[in-house]
Amino acid sequence: MQRADAIIGGMKLPLALAATALCAAPAYAQDNKQTAVTPNDVVKSAPQSEWSIIPDDELMVVTLAPDANGNPREFVVQLLAEPVSASWTRNIRTMARAHWWDGLSIYRSVDNWVVQWGDGEEEESDRKSPAKPLPADIVPTSEDDYDQAWQDGMASVLWGKNGRRPVGMASDEAAAQPGSRYADPYAAAFTYVRGIPVAVELQDHVVTDGTDPMTNTPVRMWPVHCYGSVGVARDLSPDAGTGAELYAVIGHAPRQLDRNIAVVGKVIDGIEHLSILPRGTAGFGVYATTAEHTPIISARLASDLPEGERPRYEFLDTQGDSFARYVDILANRSDSFYAVPAGGTDVCNIKVPVRMVEDAEADS
Amino acid sequence: MQRADAIIGGMKLPLALAATALCAAPAYAQDNKQTAVTPNDVVKSAPQSEWSIIPDDELMVVTLAPDANGNPREFVVQLLAEPVSASWTRNIRTMARAHWWDGLSIYRSVDNWVVQWGDGEEEESDRKSPAKPLPADIVPTSEDDYDQAWQDGMASVLWGKNGRRPVGMASDEAAAQPGSRYADPYAAAFTYVRGIPVAVELQDHVVTDGTDPMTNTPVRMWPVHCYGSVGVARDLSPDAGTGAELYAVIGHAPRQLDRNIAVVGKVIDGIEHLSILPRGTAGFGVYATTAEHTPIISARLASDLPEGERPRYEFLDTQGDSFARYVDILANRSDSFYAVPAGGTDVCNIKVPVRMVEDAEADS
Repeated sequence: MQRADAIIGGMKLPLALAATALCAAPAYAQDNKQTAVTPNDVVKSAPQSEWSIIPDDELMVVTLAPDANGNPREFVVQLLAEPVSASWTRNIRTMARAHWWDGLSIYRSVDNWVVQWGDGEEEESDRKSPAKPLPADIVPTSEDDYDQAWQDGMASVLWGKNGRRPVGMASDEAAAQPGSRYADPYAAAFTYVRGIPVAVELQDHVVTDGTDPMTNTPVRMWPVHCYGSVGVARDLSPDAGTGAELYAVIGHAPRQLDRNIAVVGKVIDGIEHLSILPRGTAGFGVYATTAEHTPIISARLASDLPEGERPRYEFLDTQGDSFARYVDILANRSDSFYAVPAGGTDVCNIKVPVRMVEDAEADS
Repeated sequence: MQRADAIIGGMKLPLALAATALCAAPAYAQDNKQTAVTPNDVVKSAPQSEWSIIPDDELMVVTLAPDANGNPREFVVQLLAEPVSASWTRNIRTMARAHWWDGLSIYRSVDNWVVQWGDGEEEESDRKSPAKPLPADIVPTSEDDYDQAWQDGMASVLWGKNGRRPVGMASDEAAAQPGSRYADPYAAAFTYVRGIPVAVELQDHVVTDGTDPMTNTPVRMWPVHCYGSVGVARDLSPDAGTGAELYAVIGHAPRQLDRNIAVVGKVIDGIEHLSILPRGTAGFGVYATTAEHTPIISARLASDLPEGERPRYEFLDTQGDSFARYVDILANRSDSFYAVPAGGTDVCNIKVPVRMVEDAEADS
């Protein structure tokens, strides 16, 4: 599995028009374009040393009932590493180990928003039926943990051993003026923790000197909502949710939810089993009938599966040279499909490459 | 139909935790939050004078074959008004009037990317079978038309009669420094043309004085790719496509496609009939078999339908006071679900309110 960028098109053009258009293009430009590097080229040529394995206990494998044609359905969530969102990921591990989600279901689907799973009973019965009791040892959570004070050790986690700056501050020239081509409308900077996108608050938001990443002192950080992000559903604030009810984003990044809901990870495989589910027609996009629910057969940490059955994934190290090049080429495409480079990109449009380890071995 | 913002959650919390959390919240903050205005409140209270009808010949109604359960499926595209993307929208009108898409199909679906329709024959047969001939009077298109030089008349279209500035430059203080909370990583500013998002290139990207929108001279503008945007599929550049093969975006805004493919409008109703289609498994997400295609029964301009059968939609005028307030509240939510206002928003996260006129009449 690799999150490949794919071009649109490949469809016919009336021959007369095609010939005209092709003749109008300077041959030099054409030749140039044909040899230009694509983001996928960079990913394919990244050395194995720049790929990082996701630990077994940071992977949750959710098996759904087969689809109407009997095809199996499974999706895999990469959980955030501690200390980020730790109270929720601890609860999620507790619930997975208690097999708490087994027999529950996906009960909500809202277009360009989220698909949500857990115990949908309460919704259907107007909050009067008893909900499934949670396992013991669920830890309290708090809004205070939506973001994370900067700690000494984080620089190496976020910036990397080589002191590379956050992607959202990649270009000095760009960052120094309005309309920065890596500007984020929601935060001062962004970067990635083990491939998962996070926003960073800086003590001084003005970038004065780009050579040293510590010129702007990081103050806080928080995981952000992108397509595929997994978060903790909750009731009205200040409820912070337990982790029992989870959702995955299936639309344009709803960044206004950042720091208002706990993000606990992202779907790294099988999100299409969530995103194509019919949308719910009752209040808040909940399904009107239980017949529309998608049953959850099981939800397990990979570390709790028999050794031979554990899926293994690796992501492209976001502090490595290949990732930096990948982002630069994403922001400035010049391969044959592109006439105008974007000149920038946003935190959610940079899809950190993830692949199954089996794939990688087959490739090499 | 109204593109309502909807909260996540509403699920149970163990009573002990909920009580603790609620007791910790200051009563004043709670009261304050309960009366805070939501974006939907602003939309609901907008005066009828701030709603604009979409002309019949800017609406294309696409009827698909009923789904597996026999439910009807229809989606509605709002086409961009001239001069924006005019060569493609003229072709699209020509093809709709020739009933060109009738009997063709949706042949491609890629997760977090696009769903595409038209004539899928060529893909399946390795480009060797004859494609369906296009109607006469198809006009040539060119990459030069992906963006639009600024014209005198545009100021009133984009900025509005009242001289309101583009949303992307809404706040002087914000725009004057890096990390502008309305900054766009892909363009100097953004705004909306009849509810459809566009990016604006300025002669001077530094905002020096916010009182006059003309301080920064607009040079060019182009429609952008957001969730629901409809564009013209094409082969490799410099092919610019005819409009015969169209796609709708069903994922996070792929802004790198801006100015590289023609955007011709957006889906304003029924996008869930596209976004939930199973993903294609052949190359580029094309369906492996024709059995997986979704047949198109008809595609018609609303102006070509019998008068009683024309759907009518109106959008909230993006130059009006209500829209300005709607954006401000979207960017700074303080209602009961939100603890931390985002402080900003992006062009694609501002969903311009659209509603059926029947709905509006029933409401009032």
